[in-house]
Amino acid sequence: MTIKALTFDVFGTTVDWNTGIARESEKALAPKGCKLDWVAFANRWRSEYQPFMEEVRTGRRPYATMDTLHREMLDIPLAEYKVPNLTDQEKQDLALAWRRLPAWPDAAEGLDRMREKFIVAALSNGNMALTVNLAKFADISWDIILGAELVETYKPLPQVYDSAAHYLDLNPSEIMMVACHHWDLDAASERGFRTAFVSRLDEYGKGEHDPQPEPGTYDYQATDFLDLANQLGC
Amino acid sequence: MTIKALTFDVFGTTVDWNTGIARESEKALAPKGCKLDWVAFANRWRSEYQPFMEEVRTGRRPYATMDTLHREMLDIPLAEYKVPNLTDQEKQDLALAWRRLPAWPDAAEGLDRMREKFIVAALSNGNMALTVNLAKFADISWDIILGAELVETYKPLPQVYDSAAHYLDLNPSEIMMVACHHWDLDAASERGFRTAFVSRLDEYGKGEHDPQPEPGTYDYQATDFLDLANQLGC
Repeated sequence: MTIKALTFDVFGTTVDWNTGIARESEKALAPKGCKLDWVAFANRWRSEYQPFMEEVRTGRRPYATMDTLHREMLDIPLAEYKVPNLTDQEKQDLALAWRRLPAWPDAAEGLDRMREKFIVAALSNGNMALTVNLAKFADISWDIILGAELVETYKPLPQVYDSAAHYLDLNPSEIMMVACHHWDLDAASERGFRTAFVSRLDEYGKGEHDPQPEPGTYDYQATDFLDLANQLGC
Repeated sequence: MTIKALTFDVFGTTVDWNTGIARESEKALAPKGCKLDWVAFANRWRSEYQPFMEEVRTGRRPYATMDTLHREMLDIPLAEYKVPNLTDQEKQDLALAWRRLPAWPDAAEGLDRMREKFIVAALSNGNMALTVNLAKFADISWDIILGAELVETYKPLPQVYDSAAHYLDLNPSEIMMVACHHWDLDAASERGFRTAFVSRLDEYGKGEHDPQPEPGTYDYQATDFLDLANQLGC
């Protein structure tokens, strides 16, 4: 079967959250007198991502949006880095920094090229409002935004991938998941999606990234979205 | 409160379904020897739109997608116009003609201009796959596709408008509904949305359209999407 739609992971794969969160955290906290390793602060904040989602995935807590989880997760690095008191409004504004992240330099052009040939969808753990505001800020365009919020749980649970096939009215084999994380691609593959790994070698800061797959692990393996577009004939 | 998002009706407001359906019906049925008034055929098909949705809105039947309803509705004009036997596949292909409609000439540019300043969302009774395929065909871009399928019932029921505010994480007063039909705007207004009426004077064929509102009925009244963009300072 031909590929008709590409579903993209967003955080890490499409946008550079580490740079964005380091920058937004510095903007919010440096005026309070904080002198921190902002890249490390961003990584510490993000390190709560899987544990917080796991509470929802296991059913130990009801679904809460990623905006909400970002706000709760933030309290942990704030305490560990001994950031002086912030008002609730200041914490809320900083939590929404995840709506204000830069795209990787190749992302906008790569997505636009792939949109000429495929339905290009966001398939993120970010909630709809988070994902659409982020796209506006990062100046990227999706044909459609799908994801965790529509099934009120989180990747890599199968419901999220299954819902994408459902809403796109496609067979899973007509959809290719694009991500820089093994766990996302492996779960998509389990649900019958094709898979494309894109390397994001600076995801957690300069040269800090997830393990790279052996060649042949996924259907496609690309250095960035332009390379993927080339390989897909876009 | 400032307007942050515009939610657009699609069929009639954004795309010219009458021209599209007349053309696609002729393409499918003329080779079978049919010589019909294709504009009238399109209008007859569309005339089943509200009655079929009403079955779902009242709960008399479970939710079925607009693609499914289009397929069922089609049997009525096919019988009335005595169209010779079509295979199931031919009927299915023709039902999906609603995914292959032209945008009004001002729509693509108008939406792009409004996307510079607002979140621009589709809020249609069309299901997600129908709306995204239609956007690709008509060469228009949405920031986000919302609509009936996400709540499994149909406009003008309040759930559809409420779900848009929910997924956009906005107060209804920060959202403006844009449509060429009174019933849609009146229902959106009931849920706290602002409203913009756009005239589509050829919706049902040359010069055939819904009644036009008295000036001042809605927050904005525009001749097309470019006029609306101008009025909104885009």
